[in-house]
Amino acid sequence: PDTSSKASASPAEPKGKRPPVLVDGVTLNGPTLDIREAESFLRDAMPIIMEEAVWKATDVKEKVCEWRSPEQLKDLLDLELREGGEAHPQILQRCRDAIRYSVKTGHPLFFNQLYAGMDPYSLVGRFITEAINPSLYTYEVAPVFLLTEEAVLQKMIEIIGWQEGGDGIFSPGGSVSNMYAVNVARYHHCPDVKVLGLSALPRLVMFTSQECHYSVAKAAAFLGIGTNNVYVIPSDKRYAAYCCWLLLVTAGYCWLLLVTACWGGGALMSKKHRYLLQGIHRANSVAWNPHKMLMAGLQCCAFMVRDKTNLLQRCHSAQASYLFQQDKFYDVSYDTGDKSIQCSRKPDAFKFWLMWKAIGTKGLEERVDRALAMARYLAEEIKKRDGFRLVMEPEYTNVCFWYIPPSLRDMADGPEFWRNVHAVAPVVKERMMKKGSMMVGYQPHGDKANFFRQIIISPQVSREDMDFLLDQIHSLGMDL
Amino acid sequence: PDTSSKASASPAEPKGKRPPVLVDGVTLNGPTLDIREAESFLRDAMPIIMEEAVWKATDVKEKVCEWRSPEQLKDLLDLELREGGEAHPQILQRCRDAIRYSVKTGHPLFFNQLYAGMDPYSLVGRFITEAINPSLYTYEVAPVFLLTEEAVLQKMIEIIGWQEGGDGIFSPGGSVSNMYAVNVARYHHCPDVKVLGLSALPRLVMFTSQECHYSVAKAAAFLGIGTNNVYVIPSDKRYAAYCCWLLLVTAGYCWLLLVTACWGGGALMSKKHRYLLQGIHRANSVAWNPHKMLMAGLQCCAFMVRDKTNLLQRCHSAQASYLFQQDKFYDVSYDTGDKSIQCSRKPDAFKFWLMWKAIGTKGLEERVDRALAMARYLAEEIKKRDGFRLVMEPEYTNVCFWYIPPSLRDMADGPEFWRNVHAVAPVVKERMMKKGSMMVGYQPHGDKANFFRQIIISPQVSREDMDFLLDQIHSLGMDL
Repeated sequence: PDTSSKASASPAEPKGKRPPVLVDGVTLNGPTLDIREAESFLRDAMPIIMEEAVWKATDVKEKVCEWRSPEQLKDLLDLELREGGEAHPQILQRCRDAIRYSVKTGHPLFFNQLYAGMDPYSLVGRFITEAINPSLYTYEVAPVFLLTEEAVLQKMIEIIGWQEGGDGIFSPGGSVSNMYAVNVARYHHCPDVKVLGLSALPRLVMFTSQECHYSVAKAAAFLGIGTNNVYVIPSDKRYAAYCCWLLLVTAGYCWLLLVTACWGGGALMSKKHRYLLQGIHRANSVAWNPHKMLMAGLQCCAFMVRDKTNLLQRCHSAQASYLFQQDKFYDVSYDTGDKSIQCSRKPDAFKFWLMWKAIGTKGLEERVDRALAMARYLAEEIKKRDGFRLVMEPEYTNVCFWYIPPSLRDMADGPEFWRNVHAVAPVVKERMMKKGSMMVGYQPHGDKANFFRQIIISPQVSREDMDFLLDQIHSLGMDL
Repeated sequence: PDTSSKASASPAEPKGKRPPVLVDGVTLNGPTLDIREAESFLRDAMPIIMEEAVWKATDVKEKVCEWRSPEQLKDLLDLELREGGEAHPQILQRCRDAIRYSVKTGHPLFFNQLYAGMDPYSLVGRFITEAINPSLYTYEVAPVFLLTEEAVLQKMIEIIGWQEGGDGIFSPGGSVSNMYAVNVARYHHCPDVKVLGLSALPRLVMFTSQECHYSVAKAAAFLGIGTNNVYVIPSDKRYAAYCCWLLLVTAGYCWLLLVTACWGGGALMSKKHRYLLQGIHRANSVAWNPHKMLMAGLQCCAFMVRDKTNLLQRCHSAQASYLFQQDKFYDVSYDTGDKSIQCSRKPDAFKFWLMWKAIGTKGLEERVDRALAMARYLAEEIKKRDGFRLVMEPEYTNVCFWYIPPSLRDMADGPEFWRNVHAVAPVVKERMMKKGSMMVGYQPHGDKANFFRQIIISPQVSREDMDFLLDQIHSLGMDL
């Protein structure tokens, strides 16, 4: 095709003036969005975003957060939506405020969740997709983003080790991936479930390991199975990088439903550490979120099935005639949107594809290896220091530990000791947030008292930051 | 609190050099992400994004798309993910290519889906949230984005007309909102369904109007109800701006489950046109996607419930102890993440909040009024022109019409005539895409032959574009 020429006969070319057309009191000639004004706004806004939300937000010398209580922040932000609009200077100030009072999740001292850091390639990928604003139903409207999604999925499937290949789709979060897994499994067992509902099946029972109870419960409730039909199998004391689910339908059917490696999947990139996910290729489906360990940016969640029979499509399709016309002029097998439970869907794979292109498989591997080495360093430091105690040896990059203030160090181990320790982390957390010096999560677990849960991901994190973290916790909690 | 001082004792301050630490073969001192290199990459990439993906992509004189077949595009993009990374100039070229071959959904001549256009305020909001990369589980990590979400939801609820107030959550798409509605309804009727599953209930039956069968079927299948248990009620000949669902559990329980106003909800902003959604306040839940008519950018989908009893939370909560700790130092009722079926969740309301602040309720209303007037203009033009025929009078901004090429104009109305007409739209569509001149969807409907479905949304669309559209269809299809 002739690709050099622009669309001819474009409406902007003059073709005889016509008087303004008025319909229902609205003048319709010409566009009403002032593109010059839009340009000037974006020109003013972009340096603020780059300076405040990218560079300052990832600078270790800046604060991680600027804490305000909900009541204070409501006043500061002036949330009310009014009849009239606001001028550009005011909107620019709102942008500055929104950035200022947001938690800087890309900051090297943000250790609070299972994601962190800032990758410049992924960020550029996200800016591109936000500007283009595509939706991934059909090849016709999202050719680049459907092809990059397919390329990323096939590479991830290869890395999982499904030699016979597989299929997949990006979903809006690991919890939704889990739901896909349950739905695909019951449909695989009994395709009638799609039309007849669960009444077509005997009672479904799911087994899951202890550490993934939260998302399994959500899936079981939402998909009509019920949380009581989830049986939790005690796992060993370590918290593995992944967890397994089984779906059991009477004694006759048992599927290794899913390996949830949303967080742990990153280890697959490392020759040194992929043994942590040994046997993952035996699963019928895998959920793996590159927005976590691999820093692809929220959200980037792959759900993959060991299947070449178009199971995903058969299970979820509804064949909307206004989207999935079969009389199109290209191969409609590229219109993969009907595999999804969503209709409009964001291009979550592209940012990951661009980052992967930029740093290569080797670059991803180096990041994972370094994060694991850093976790090992932190664990050894914790063992060396008075008043710090590991909850368990880390296997991955979550390092769980207690801080014991001097006042408790001579107390005998027992219920009162742990009651006191339990109260330490919330206070230290409050103090670090009000200071804005760093963010690390805490949690109880079963009968274990509140402990810190340090997550290491980003290549911007240094050994010095680990030392700082421990120093800081001690200095914030030593009087308790 | 003292907000001016930076976090003290930051790790970047020198505190005595220590020799490099080596763990597992990895040197851990200092960050390994080269921030200077990242800065230089972003400095080079941003002008490309602004020029190619924002300004050229919304310029009516440029092409809407640069069509390539899947096979051609795979070659052009070089999709393969390799061991080694690529240098910046090559990655920048990949950015240019990705933009070039993407469909420009913000272009004034993109009429293909239920969303279109580019709003500069929303775009800046999206750039901010991509840079900050938050996840909306807790106030602790997403204070600004949870409060703006709440403000937007409360204003939307006020506009719906629920005088007693309500609750809501942003979801990743209207289809997921629909699933929320079904799950909330059955839980409202019988809270045991969460733990016992559907076996706790008699067979559920859903009624829905004809025009929303697609997403209802997906929801019924996914939630274990089964598509056979969805009964479709023929709607009148017009395609209303919304559709209703009922949930029926035996004769004893009937809920006006949901009004799906994902697309039509925009009319609520208009004093002149909100009568199209008359009675919407009587629904128990409403799905409304501001990313469609209100141009908030994909995705921006509110699911709202007429409820003040924390129904959403009770229905979906799983109380993950690592996220929703109850011993935090602030009011944890702001940690609204457990209302959601998702765990990580994007800040989809913020971009809408910023745009609403900038143009006001009045600005949104003017856009809606103008789009409806433009649809009216197009419909009248279609009536005036030879060879164009309306499928029905438009009630909203979807204008559905057939183009009858000269060769068919004298043929008698009958099966052969419609078989011929049916073949016209796919060919015209192929030609417009290969030319890149515009994009408009087509579809069959029931026994109706393929017709064009023109969607009008953006304030960048002018009356001249409507004329161009009809001229262009005629010039592309007159030889058929």
